[in-house]
Amino acid sequence: MDFSQNRLCKLLGIQYPIIQGGMIWCSGWRLASAVSNQGGLGIIGAGSMYPEVFREHIQKCKAATNKPFGVNLPLLYADLEQLIGIIREEEIKIIITSAGNPKIWTPLFKEMGCTVLHVVASQKFARKAEEAGVDGLIAEGFEAGGHNGREEITTFNLIPAVRSVSQLPLAAAGGVYSGHSILGAMALGADGVQIGSLFALSEESSAHSNFKNLAINSAEGDTKLLLKSLHPVRLLNSTFSKAVEKAESLGASKEELEQLLGRARAKKGMFEGNLEEGELEIGQNAAYIRKIEPVKDIFATLLSDLKSAYSDLGKRC
Amino acid sequence: MDFSQNRLCKLLGIQYPIIQGGMIWCSGWRLASAVSNQGGLGIIGAGSMYPEVFREHIQKCKAATNKPFGVNLPLLYADLEQLIGIIREEEIKIIITSAGNPKIWTPLFKEMGCTVLHVVASQKFARKAEEAGVDGLIAEGFEAGGHNGREEITTFNLIPAVRSVSQLPLAAAGGVYSGHSILGAMALGADGVQIGSLFALSEESSAHSNFKNLAINSAEGDTKLLLKSLHPVRLLNSTFSKAVEKAESLGASKEELEQLLGRARAKKGMFEGNLEEGELEIGQNAAYIRKIEPVKDIFATLLSDLKSAYSDLGKRC
Repeated sequence: MDFSQNRLCKLLGIQYPIIQGGMIWCSGWRLASAVSNQGGLGIIGAGSMYPEVFREHIQKCKAATNKPFGVNLPLLYADLEQLIGIIREEEIKIIITSAGNPKIWTPLFKEMGCTVLHVVASQKFARKAEEAGVDGLIAEGFEAGGHNGREEITTFNLIPAVRSVSQLPLAAAGGVYSGHSILGAMALGADGVQIGSLFALSEESSAHSNFKNLAINSAEGDTKLLLKSLHPVRLLNSTFSKAVEKAESLGASKEELEQLLGRARAKKGMFEGNLEEGELEIGQNAAYIRKIEPVKDIFATLLSDLKSAYSDLGKRC
Repeated sequence: MDFSQNRLCKLLGIQYPIIQGGMIWCSGWRLASAVSNQGGLGIIGAGSMYPEVFREHIQKCKAATNKPFGVNLPLLYADLEQLIGIIREEEIKIIITSAGNPKIWTPLFKEMGCTVLHVVASQKFARKAEEAGVDGLIAEGFEAGGHNGREEITTFNLIPAVRSVSQLPLAAAGGVYSGHSILGAMALGADGVQIGSLFALSEESSAHSNFKNLAINSAEGDTKLLLKSLHPVRLLNSTFSKAVEKAESLGASKEELEQLLGRARAKKGMFEGNLEEGELEIGQNAAYIRKIEPVKDIFATLLSDLKSAYSDLGKRC
């Protein structure tokens, strides 16, 4: 395999077109630096960090790798301007934005000299992000863990649809966990991938081992897209998710769901390991991820499987 | 592209690894013979046919093509034994089974000298189908139109998952509508594809033009998986589907949904073109299919796009 002409690698200055998802409670400096050190793009997920915690993770990540890494910034974050101040001071040059309107913030990030990728879940929003001036797109399908698009478009449908309206460097997200899925994403039209769940369940992820163990022992059908009337989110089955499912099947109102959800459930579940009361965000492919491994081994397996997938493809067509 | 060693082509005696989905109210002899004449595998969908109508379609298909074609047989069909009698008398040699247990019927079909492919929606059922002795698998993801698996596994997740447990010839279904999606399916591990919606909306499909026109003008998010508590089915937005959605959001019971559904709604919608009261089954990719074309043109576009997709892939890795 030769990635020397790969547009995502060139845009980001990385060796392999593999971006690590910036996931709340999973992706601090340990995970981000491990991914960057293997030749992918490590990402510090700002979504679960207070500003000063965010700064600390950036500084530790700088100490742990001399390769490029970036940050994931949910544009609806309450302390957004403080985080942007830190990004500027720490001279972070790669920003992945999500959950908000890229039109408002992209010009500022470009002024700061940053490369900006925006996460989209439909062809429609891919067009809007390109109009806003982003440098690349991450198209994330229905199978992805955590927050998700309302249109429920799957990765398999989304990638060719986005590619048909934009020639920007494009990463596929949602369902990527093997070399076959990386090659599949590229064949569908993506330049590379963003991988979430597989890294959320790696050794270097800061998620609690209770959560990781539950996920690697889960079965097909054990994640569900819930809370659709608030903001769709893919959750692993748990006492809490079952309560949400039940409430929804009985026709709960938005207000009732908000009350049921309460606050800080994701921290409780994913970071503190409370599998009863916590919210557990993971992708549908958790059913096929069976081991908690170090990032180094994950990369070795992904890359050797990608080679096999490419050679298998040649036998089919 | 070279399909001379493609295992699905060899198994079925076809030129291109493209199977047409056997869809109720869409796939009679006109569509099936058109697909077979282009080098794919045409399929007569028995699901919406009385036994004597089924026989008539088989005989007309034989008159319209000298290439292989097959039939799709939902194993839960009320008149199943009568249909099997017709398959035997008409010497049909390719059967695609779905919606039922392959263990019960596969031995009989093999005794009749047939090639049997079974439709599965999970890794678990792929194993069971292989144990039942089928010759090939069709793995159909969440994005597919019509009846669908309870686990909601997407095509992008399902194909590598099935491939990792079975080496049988494998077709990917759900979301296939372009050369890029065919190559994507093959890169993920499938030997070929089954295409539904694109053929359901072709000129030769027996569906009503009202339905076809509504579908090619639909937008992202306009299909939804509904009636999950009865049997999940992907429907295009319509007056009827909105009533179902509303009832479900208010916590309707199974009995209430059964009553709301009533009888013969799919015929009313897809065959008679009643867009208010009818049920309209179509895949999520209807949002990206913009033309009603003859099967010949569809094949030409698919094959030329497949070539471009393969050459694009070489530039990425």
